[in-house]
Amino acid sequence: MITLTSDFGLKDPYAAEMKGVILTINPNATIIDITHGVEKFNVRTGAFMLASAALYFPKGTVHLAVVDPCVGTERRAILIQTKKGFFVGPDNGILILAAQNQGIEHIHQLINPKFMLPKVSKTFHGRDVFAPAAAHLDMGVNPVEFGPEINDTVMPEFARVKQKNNAVIGEVLHVDGFGNIITNINQKEIADAKTVNVKLQNLSLKLILGKSYAQAILHEPIMLIGSHGFLEIALNQANAAEKFHAKTGDKIEITLLNST
Amino acid sequence: MITLTSDFGLKDPYAAEMKGVILTINPNATIIDITHGVEKFNVRTGAFMLASAALYFPKGTVHLAVVDPCVGTERRAILIQTKKGFFVGPDNGILILAAQNQGIEHIHQLINPKFMLPKVSKTFHGRDVFAPAAAHLDMGVNPVEFGPEINDTVMPEFARVKQKNNAVIGEVLHVDGFGNIITNINQKEIADAKTVNVKLQNLSLKLILGKSYAQAILHEPIMLIGSHGFLEIALNQANAAEKFHAKTGDKIEITLLNST
Amino acid sequence: MITLTSDFGLKDPYAAEMKGVILTINPNATIIDITHGVEKFNVRTGAFMLASAALYFPKGTVHLAVVDPCVGTERRAILIQTKKGFFVGPDNGILILAAQNQGIEHIHQLINPKFMLPKVSKTFHGRDVFAPAAAHLDMGVNPVEFGPEINDTVMPEFARVKQKNNAVIGEVLHVDGFGNIITNINQKEIADAKTVNVKLQNLSLKLILGKSYAQAILHEPIMLIGSHGFLEIALNQANAAEKFHAKTGDKIEITLLNST
Repeated sequence: MITLTSDFGLKDPYAAEMKGVILTINPNATIIDITHGVEKFNVRTGAFMLASAALYFPKGTVHLAVVDPCVGTERRAILIQTKKGFFVGPDNGILILAAQNQGIEHIHQLINPKFMLPKVSKTFHGRDVFAPAAAHLDMGVNPVEFGPEINDTVMPEFARVKQKNNAVIGEVLHVDGFGNIITNINQKEIADAKTVNVKLQNLSLKLILGKSYAQAILHEPIMLIGSHGFLEIALNQANAAEKFHAKTGDKIEITLLNST
Repeated sequence: MITLTSDFGLKDPYAAEMKGVILTINPNATIIDITHGVEKFNVRTGAFMLASAALYFPKGTVHLAVVDPCVGTERRAILIQTKKGFFVGPDNGILILAAQNQGIEHIHQLINPKFMLPKVSKTFHGRDVFAPAAAHLDMGVNPVEFGPEINDTVMPEFARVKQKNNAVIGEVLHVDGFGNIITNINQKEIADAKTVNVKLQNLSLKLILGKSYAQAILHEPIMLIGSHGFLEIALNQANAAEKFHAKTGDKIEITLLNST
Repeated sequence: MITLTSDFGLKDPYAAEMKGVILTINPNATIIDITHGVEKFNVRTGAFMLASAALYFPKGTVHLAVVDPCVGTERRAILIQTKKGFFVGPDNGILILAAQNQGIEHIHQLINPKFMLPKVSKTFHGRDVFAPAAAHLDMGVNPVEFGPEINDTVMPEFARVKQKNNAVIGEVLHVDGFGNIITNINQKEIADAKTVNVKLQNLSLKLILGKSYAQAILHEPIMLIGSHGFLEIALNQANAAEKFHAKTGDKIEITLLNST
């Protein structure tokens, strides 16, 4: 199974050309669009969408993602092998949140022309490099055959969660349609804490780390792991981003407390 | 085979998450999007689109539809077994026009957690409740295993066609891009009448019940069963909704006449 | 494998109805959307998108395309058998660029009602005529069974490339998002020439016929075969259409020179 994520839109035939390439190599591939509606060149949003959706796909799925403002430059093409599946795309951070959630095992640069189209354009690696790689991975080709292992993959600011004593420092990844403030911090970072201190801009909040919005008093805040797998600050039936003036990119610092 | 209808749009990964859930349960499922472009929260339009498209899918198809303004409240989740296939979604009327067209056999409430994701969110039953139910139905699970049979399903105004003597009273379901006035009255209600009297707002019309637009004189009205399976008033090469000032929700009363 | 190209959009269930019809006839069909976002009634753009994408699909693929301003009139429904696959759609030019690229073998009019829906609407041949034809072709039905061979298919201006001595006369098919001027002239017309004289409106240019944009000096023009299979005029990292004031439909005359 292969999923596709891009900022190509659905008006032009670009997503279809990737599918044609995949199905020419592997006529039995099952191909699912995650979205082709990522905001143009917005790697952060693409990374968040891929990470959210990848949670719901079966073990062994190959995820191809292309939001690629630097196609045609020296940026590398990579594949990431995780404990659950594979990711293929540019080395610009688009794959990293989803791959980290699954546990990264190996990262390879894609350099073997055997797994590319005969003629690689400067402008459309989605079709010429990533689609053939995804098709071959889906057919069982060993990741080592695509190119050398690398350990200096690009790690954008939005993927870097830092530990400082018992604090975790991350940032706001996304504000959803309900005003929930979604961070780049995932379940692994917060262990089984029950309460947290949160610093967001110049606010300081002590919050329950709960399971559902309804655990908070009406219109009061709570912190929980959303269905996208990331820690979020929400209000019970109200808009947290408005109340706390939070926006994408804001720094956030969370201190785990062991008791309520 | 499983179809999907929703108001989620294609920008966010929500439709893809439903597909991931289905394919995790049933990797061989064929999944077809009917549309994810239903107007947000417009149950009536979603019901009409599902009913139109469901006509063209094979026997045994499982149709999942989610336009669900009341997710998170007490509204029930249901499955409807018809003479031709299955429908899964919220109990708010979204399924009912399509299911009535096929002949309803049984309706079950979805309460068995065995056929839901382990953690059911308050906001996304499409992924957590309906997608797993559709996948299991498609694999042959018996409808009785999902929950108790119910007989008080929600029947919105737009699904209620009334009989009064030899009159049928319904409403305007949709005005299409050609200005055809599509009602919620289907073939079964009109038997083999050849002419009808129509009351629409304060108009009264005597119309031929024909087979094609061309049976009417140019720019003159005719009534026929459209390719969506519902009775419609059309003008031959002109806009009926404009001429008769008709809009969605208008009441319509049709009296069958046996002779022309 | 069957691809779909149309101007139906994704809001209405029309594309889904075609898929339902195909899957009712052939439940094992693999169906891929090329795009349903062709500008309404723009046959030229639809023809270009289909031709671009068809290059990347495997041998034997059946391509269904419907941009059909004249549905309901006397325009014919056709299938084209090429050296690589099949095309199904209205006889208005929508299929012709893609089919010419593959090498046309036979063209048949679709008149056999056995391969149509029982009731053919005046307004939706995509569903009632083309979808069943594509499904049956994909299952191996012989093209001769669909109707008589014809040799007077509609050839719109944008598909007519003329030879005059050693000049090739065509037109601008499309200006892409980078400002590349894409013509309707394909590889076969230009053999292995290395330099060309180009007349575009009242300009006259002597251009290298190269392989990649980077062969030109920065901001200078080059002519090459783009990844869509057509000859284009591009600037190295700049906008050719702006510089040369070129737009869709402009006439272009190319003279092949044997030496640089």
